[in-house]
Amino acid sequence: MKQPFPFSAIVGQDDMKLSMILTAIDPTIGGVLVFGDRGTGKSTAVRALAALLPQIQRVEGCPVNSEKAEDVPVWVEMADKKISAAPTPVVDLPLGVTEDRVTGALDIEKALSNGEKAFQPGLLARANRGYLYIDEVNLLEDHIVDLLLDVAQSGENVVEREGLSIRHPSRFVLVGSGNPEEGELRPQLLDRFGLSVDVTSPTTIEDRVEVIKRRDAYETDHEAFMVRWKAENALVRTQIESARQSLHHLKTTDSALTDIAALCLKLGADGLRGELTLLKAARAFAAYRDDTAIGRDHIRAVAPMALRHRLRRDPLDDAGSGARVARVVEDVLA
Amino acid sequence: MKQPFPFSAIVGQDDMKLSMILTAIDPTIGGVLVFGDRGTGKSTAVRALAALLPQIQRVEGCPVNSEKAEDVPVWVEMADKKISAAPTPVVDLPLGVTEDRVTGALDIEKALSNGEKAFQPGLLARANRGYLYIDEVNLLEDHIVDLLLDVAQSGENVVEREGLSIRHPSRFVLVGSGNPEEGELRPQLLDRFGLSVDVTSPTTIEDRVEVIKRRDAYETDHEAFMVRWKAENALVRTQIESARQSLHHLKTTDSALTDIAALCLKLGADGLRGELTLLKAARAFAAYRDDTAIGRDHIRAVAPMALRHRLRRDPLDDAGSGARVARVVEDVLA
Amino acid sequence: MKQPFPFSAIVGQDDMKLSMILTAIDPTIGGVLVFGDRGTGKSTAVRALAALLPQIQRVEGCPVNSEKAEDVPVWVEMADKKISAAPTPVVDLPLGVTEDRVTGALDIEKALSNGEKAFQPGLLARANRGYLYIDEVNLLEDHIVDLLLDVAQSGENVVEREGLSIRHPSRFVLVGSGNPEEGELRPQLLDRFGLSVDVTSPTTIEDRVEVIKRRDAYETDHEAFMVRWKAENALVRTQIESARQSLHHLKTTDSALTDIAALCLKLGADGLRGELTLLKAARAFAAYRDDTAIGRDHIRAVAPMALRHRLRRDPLDDAGSGARVARVVEDVLA
Amino acid sequence: MKQPFPFSAIVGQDDMKLSMILTAIDPTIGGVLVFGDRGTGKSTAVRALAALLPQIQRVEGCPVNSEKAEDVPVWVEMADKKISAAPTPVVDLPLGVTEDRVTGALDIEKALSNGEKAFQPGLLARANRGYLYIDEVNLLEDHIVDLLLDVAQSGENVVEREGLSIRHPSRFVLVGSGNPEEGELRPQLLDRFGLSVDVTSPTTIEDRVEVIKRRDAYETDHEAFMVRWKAENALVRTQIESARQSLHHLKTTDSALTDIAALCLKLGADGLRGELTLLKAARAFAAYRDDTAIGRDHIRAVAPMALRHRLRRDPLDDAGSGARVARVVEDVLA
Amino acid sequence: MKQPFPFSAIVGQDDMKLSMILTAIDPTIGGVLVFGDRGTGKSTAVRALAALLPQIQRVEGCPVNSEKAEDVPVWVEMADKKISAAPTPVVDLPLGVTEDRVTGALDIEKALSNGEKAFQPGLLARANRGYLYIDEVNLLEDHIVDLLLDVAQSGENVVEREGLSIRHPSRFVLVGSGNPEEGELRPQLLDRFGLSVDVTSPTTIEDRVEVIKRRDAYETDHEAFMVRWKAENALVRTQIESARQSLHHLKTTDSALTDIAALCLKLGADGLRGELTLLKAARAFAAYRDDTAIGRDHIRAVAPMALRHRLRRDPLDDAGSGARVARVVEDVLA
Amino acid sequence: MKQPFPFSAIVGQDDMKLSMILTAIDPTIGGVLVFGDRGTGKSTAVRALAALLPQIQRVEGCPVNSEKAEDVPVWVEMADKKISAAPTPVVDLPLGVTEDRVTGALDIEKALSNGEKAFQPGLLARANRGYLYIDEVNLLEDHIVDLLLDVAQSGENVVEREGLSIRHPSRFVLVGSGNPEEGELRPQLLDRFGLSVDVTSPTTIEDRVEVIKRRDAYETDHEAFMVRWKAENALVRTQIESARQSLHHLKTTDSALTDIAALCLKLGADGLRGELTLLKAARAFAAYRDDTAIGRDHIRAVAPMALRHRLRRDPLDDAGSGARVARVVEDVLA
Repeated sequence: MKQPFPFSAIVGQDDMKLSMILTAIDPTIGGVLVFGDRGTGKSTAVRALAALLPQIQRVEGCPVNSEKAEDVPVWVEMADKKISAAPTPVVDLPLGVTEDRVTGALDIEKALSNGEKAFQPGLLARANRGYLYIDEVNLLEDHIVDLLLDVAQSGENVVEREGLSIRHPSRFVLVGSGNPEEGELRPQLLDRFGLSVDVTSPTTIEDRVEVIKRRDAYETDHEAFMVRWKAENALVRTQIESARQSLHHLKTTDSALTDIAALCLKLGADGLRGELTLLKAARAFAAYRDDTAIGRDHIRAVAPMALRHRLRRDPLDDAGSGARVARVVEDVLA
Repeated sequence: MKQPFPFSAIVGQDDMKLSMILTAIDPTIGGVLVFGDRGTGKSTAVRALAALLPQIQRVEGCPVNSEKAEDVPVWVEMADKKISAAPTPVVDLPLGVTEDRVTGALDIEKALSNGEKAFQPGLLARANRGYLYIDEVNLLEDHIVDLLLDVAQSGENVVEREGLSIRHPSRFVLVGSGNPEEGELRPQLLDRFGLSVDVTSPTTIEDRVEVIKRRDAYETDHEAFMVRWKAENALVRTQIESARQSLHHLKTTDSALTDIAALCLKLGADGLRGELTLLKAARAFAAYRDDTAIGRDHIRAVAPMALRHRLRRDPLDDAGSGARVARVVEDVLA
Repeated sequence: MKQPFPFSAIVGQDDMKLSMILTAIDPTIGGVLVFGDRGTGKSTAVRALAALLPQIQRVEGCPVNSEKAEDVPVWVEMADKKISAAPTPVVDLPLGVTEDRVTGALDIEKALSNGEKAFQPGLLARANRGYLYIDEVNLLEDHIVDLLLDVAQSGENVVEREGLSIRHPSRFVLVGSGNPEEGELRPQLLDRFGLSVDVTSPTTIEDRVEVIKRRDAYETDHEAFMVRWKAENALVRTQIESARQSLHHLKTTDSALTDIAALCLKLGADGLRGELTLLKAARAFAAYRDDTAIGRDHIRAVAPMALRHRLRRDPLDDAGSGARVARVVEDVLA
Repeated sequence: MKQPFPFSAIVGQDDMKLSMILTAIDPTIGGVLVFGDRGTGKSTAVRALAALLPQIQRVEGCPVNSEKAEDVPVWVEMADKKISAAPTPVVDLPLGVTEDRVTGALDIEKALSNGEKAFQPGLLARANRGYLYIDEVNLLEDHIVDLLLDVAQSGENVVEREGLSIRHPSRFVLVGSGNPEEGELRPQLLDRFGLSVDVTSPTTIEDRVEVIKRRDAYETDHEAFMVRWKAENALVRTQIESARQSLHHLKTTDSALTDIAALCLKLGADGLRGELTLLKAARAFAAYRDDTAIGRDHIRAVAPMALRHRLRRDPLDDAGSGARVARVVEDVLA
Repeated sequence: MKQPFPFSAIVGQDDMKLSMILTAIDPTIGGVLVFGDRGTGKSTAVRALAALLPQIQRVEGCPVNSEKAEDVPVWVEMADKKISAAPTPVVDLPLGVTEDRVTGALDIEKALSNGEKAFQPGLLARANRGYLYIDEVNLLEDHIVDLLLDVAQSGENVVEREGLSIRHPSRFVLVGSGNPEEGELRPQLLDRFGLSVDVTSPTTIEDRVEVIKRRDAYETDHEAFMVRWKAENALVRTQIESARQSLHHLKTTDSALTDIAALCLKLGADGLRGELTLLKAARAFAAYRDDTAIGRDHIRAVAPMALRHRLRRDPLDDAGSGARVARVVEDVLA
Repeated sequence: MKQPFPFSAIVGQDDMKLSMILTAIDPTIGGVLVFGDRGTGKSTAVRALAALLPQIQRVEGCPVNSEKAEDVPVWVEMADKKISAAPTPVVDLPLGVTEDRVTGALDIEKALSNGEKAFQPGLLARANRGYLYIDEVNLLEDHIVDLLLDVAQSGENVVEREGLSIRHPSRFVLVGSGNPEEGELRPQLLDRFGLSVDVTSPTTIEDRVEVIKRRDAYETDHEAFMVRWKAENALVRTQIESARQSLHHLKTTDSALTDIAALCLKLGADGLRGELTLLKAARAFAAYRDDTAIGRDHIRAVAPMALRHRLRRDPLDDAGSGARVARVVEDVLA
């Protein structure tokens, strides 16, 4: 198996890269939805980010990657609870996955061999403290999407099936990719994603040649290519780690909050999830920039990705929702 | 796991908060349906109320939370029947729940291990004497909604499946949240909910800033925030307990009954469930206000939440059903 | 569990009450269908009637409530066949009931534990010699409704499934309630119900106040309320028992038969089930009134409930079908 | 259980009665389809005919009612093969019957208890040499109707399922009732029924009074009523037995064949099944009338019931298909 | 069980009879599709042909009728491999057949009794080297038709299910009957059938009388009728056997190939399956006529049945596709 | 079983043959989609190519055809890991294949016999390092097509079902055939195929005669025919092997990359998959031609098959997408 494509070697796509970095800094921002035509490298980016993230401390062998021995759920039978470092878990939701594998289910083997009713954890357990990636959200059955978003928000997986009644933590960043040509997502679902970005193919011959060159080098001269990008990747990792530290010491002024509220009110975004997300994204961005307080620049930079998927469609306004957000930002934060 | 957001720290949303308090005072009022856009804090409120409610006395380990030892159903095998206090049960209906977990079903483990046909209680057992919460009623399959409302009304869960023939008490307050944009509920179902309220996002910058501030503090400075709101929550709990005591001593004058009947007749509400609910809600409100008899003020205050979801749609009247109720109330009780 | 609301304490609703009394006198009349808006007390009435009916003699523990020891089906394993009195069985068809529980099915426990292929009787067995109540017939799946009506008419439950080939008596009065707003029943099904009645909410403030008062007293002062209505209930029970005795001694004159045939011919009711039902209902009514022969008054009183659901829809006649029956009755029996 | 209503006591309905008698004389005519409004006594007539038929000789306990010991299928395990008389088998197809019970299937009990793969015969076995009755053919699933007609025509039940590969004789007269208002049958299916008749309610008061009188007497004074009609029933049985004997000695002249072919050609009936059926029905009718050769009167009498369901719909001809047959008969056989 | 109706006693229907004879001579022609109204004797003809075919040599008891001992598949457990003669296998596809019986499947009995994963062959095994008959192809589910045509073409049954991975030869002539009024077949499927013919009812009284006479004699005087047609059947069998021998010695001139290609090109038949089928059918016909080379007469005679179902529909040409083929044949081969 | 038709004996169809050769040289090009009318020899070509390919070295008995002993997955239990040569695996996806056979699943036999939860590999394991052929992609269920393309792209089969959590390499060339008349493929799927070609029937009598002659000789004189084409097949095999060697030494000039990017930009092909595929196909073609660098001729030759299925439909341009590519190629590479 080849290593994933280096995150830093991705040509352009700045919005997508930023959105992923922000959720890596503050996972409570709540998931990223990447829209784009086919072949624009959406899944490449997710796998690239995963390879770049710092390691986590976890109880070895714990099915939910518990940080401390006392967090291991009671239904887990473990003699020894040693703590060691491991890569940030990244779980792919393969096509054709069944609900029992997502939530976990009755362990058939144990049930058959010794009549014991044990729980076999699913992908929601394995994704705890990491990433859960869904390629083409549009192709997943609705009831599984509902389930994932429900858990993503509550941070807990509640299983009530086959005579089992189990709950365990399941906190992860949900990354979904979608192709708007293949059917829309329900507004209710859109709102549950923290950020959303558009990706498009590069439009200059130079950029496209650069993209092909790098992909071709990655495929035909793999080792050398990975070495070449190692340092740049390490830099991004360091920045994320440092931003995580400074995040909780950042100041949130009333004027920033007022800006955020005024922006959302003007845009007519439903509910209050937009405001909270915008606050968190701006804070994470400020931390990433190594600033000490949230300023208008931070809000301005992340407002489109935090709000554009929460607007009601406006039939009289042809501009895309991203453009509408930008215009109101200019207006309100002028 | 964090503690739920404090009930008293919810900004605005007075109707929603009142409706929940009334059903906490008199659970036979019969369930609350909360309509509202996404992100308006519907599920936050339910979880908040749950955390606020007084404890109940119940037989330890009894699957239906029986109050006295003699109430434990015959199909429960319990050696010792000790009574102690426990929090009011609040049961979430997770997405993807299967009918067997709702009603209870054959205990597969016992059936496989020793060929015994035992009943494994479901969520309807666990919710007895407490709350059952359904987020997005619209997403539940119709046959499960029918089932829940049927039990909510009869107060008894009748199971006829897999060779089992079991019945047990299942009295609970059903709280459902729904988004009117995602499809309507059948009138037959609407009528079975006691009260209904609308929630909307705050419309002033001040309120919105206050909401974000409190949510942000709740998330980033959890412990301190919970301490800050403890006393206000205790006050509401005391009021509910006191109102429960005085409820049965309140006077119901013929003139109050006539007001109620006249109101419903004028509104053309189908059936008589509206009248009975209005009577109970007004009585609970009077008790909450520490008054000794039901007066016109009480009726006026709760009529919209008791009646608005029982009106036939009037194509010639553009006003929302809440406004129509208010107008007729002014007319009849003038 | 509270006792059911007293049958005699129901305000108004004379048609519904009469139709239930008639089928209690002569169960071969064949079922009652109660149409009405939500909240008009349909299910209250059925449960009330059940509580009022005289007891039956039956073999203790017999799954089909056999009257005599020799009637116990061969597939029932019973050592002792003692006869004693028991309340008239009343079986509710709970929502979500599965076909195997309706008809009975292979006893899984016996099959698993000792490989024996035994029959486990279903609700159709338990309802024998009693009542079967379906709330909201519209919500039952068609194939189960077909099944119930088929058995209701033949008086026998034939089971051909899972390698079983069983038949047992299943004679019961089928009571269904339906809401015409929630979808129509097929004419084929309507015809299989003996009687049908409409119920509506009371239209005067006085009646409505009386209804609320009684329901409120029933709920908040249960014991006293039940005592207050005991004597009136006993009177109705006595009248039913006496009418059952005199039923078979009533005279049926040719002129009554001619009246009945002329009425049905004039109304263009399909088939002959209407005539037979009308004859039986009129006879039961005469017995209830303690008369010795069927007269025009009896026919006139029950013709609407026996015939209204058997008329073809007449697009040129706006009057409801009940009104059309009444008009023709006036004409023919003038 | 009451005895069936006496065949001879049915008022009117001559076509239906004749069609049933003819197929009782010559079962290869191939099934009767009875169309009619609800309540016209279709199922009563079938059950009545069944009770009237002469007994058959069969191997006791043979699941396919074999006539001789050597006809018992190899898959039947029988020690003793005694021959005795038994009533003509009449099998009802109950609603909700599953395909495995129709065709027979793997015997689950034997498979589970001793791992043996035995065949458990179904209704098609039990109906061999008798009648199979389907009330409301319209309500049966298409794939089961196809199956039944396929077997009815081939006289053999071929089972290929669950690892079984079994065939056994299954010759029966298929009687179906249908309500044309509840959906049409496919022409392909119609053609497979030998005869078809319409039944309607009587249209005179006298007839209707007579019908109610007899039904009421049958229900309320059962024993006496059955005695009263015994002799008439015996007469019909004797006529059927005698006609069965003489059937094979009847002459079929070329002129009769030419009449039949000319009739069908003129009517444009598809295929040749109509001709063969008409020949057999006319021959059976001649035998019933105790005549020695098929004449024009016989053809004329049975042509409508043999041909009417095989005509293509003629949009320019408003007359019912029965009337069209009668008119052409007059023309051709003038 | 009666013997099948004699092939030679079929009145008229020359096309259908010829098409069946040709595929009996050269089974690689690839199946016959018989279109026609109901009752025209389609299935009678197939069963008649089956009874007429010469016997085959095969290993006794081999589930795929292997010709030589070394051809028996490895998954067959057979001690003794004796060779003997048997009738050409003819397999009916009964209605309601399940996919596992068509392809073969896991042997449940062996799996349950000794945990062994053995293959139980299905109808595709049994039909090897013989005929597979589907009455009313239209009624079969698409996925089963696809499966059958796929195997018919490859000559091999590939089973990948229930953990089995089996393949065995399955070469058979597929005969399907269809009623064009009951829905069309997909062009993709039509093309996979080698030949297609139309059958219609005879249109003269003389022919129809002859048909009824023969069918009536066949049914009422079976033995004598079979004897009467024995010699004619034997003659056809001899002709088929002789043609099979001479088939491979027939000359195929370039001019015949050019005629065939020109014909197909002119008709615009898609693909090349038509040409190859026409070549084979003409060769089989020449062999049947005992000629030594394929000539224009042979091509002319079989072109319609080989090509008519491969034409694209021509909206400007009202003539049936058979007539269009005939016209082009006249043109090209003039 | 006959040997497949020789690849070199296919008349014409140069595009299809070239596309298959290119993917044989560089399997990372990613699958071929062959569009064409029925009967144009699509599946013949795939089977022919399979027979022509050089052998691979693999661990004997390894279910995923591992090249070296250390590559055998941990879930495979193998004592001895001997390496030997074997034909390139070619896996047919039979119609009616179930998802468990595609991905692999729980080994039922092992589960039943010794309660062990072992993985039974499926077709995706068997196809590793070879070809996977789907005849009529249109007929496969969408969820299986998604699954196949997902694996084809990632080169890894991830199984999450029945309590299993398995992954193994699955790198194969996917070849699909489709009939555009039987429904379109989703753009998302089209884009995942590397190359696509059209095949049509020959349009001259000479070619068609040649095709029939060869097919007829192949069928009737098999052995001699195979011998005749042996040398030509060997030549193609040698060319493929030689091109595989030289592939990685070919120069890719910036000017070639610029040509490719300019071409795709001008055509407006979505995403970047087209560019990368075009680069690889041109490189494989150059290697096949034994050239040392990619030139404009190579790009020109393969551009249509690499790009035509990635264009957006242009309603104003009637020319087929192949023609549109060719025109732009002329323009850009002029």
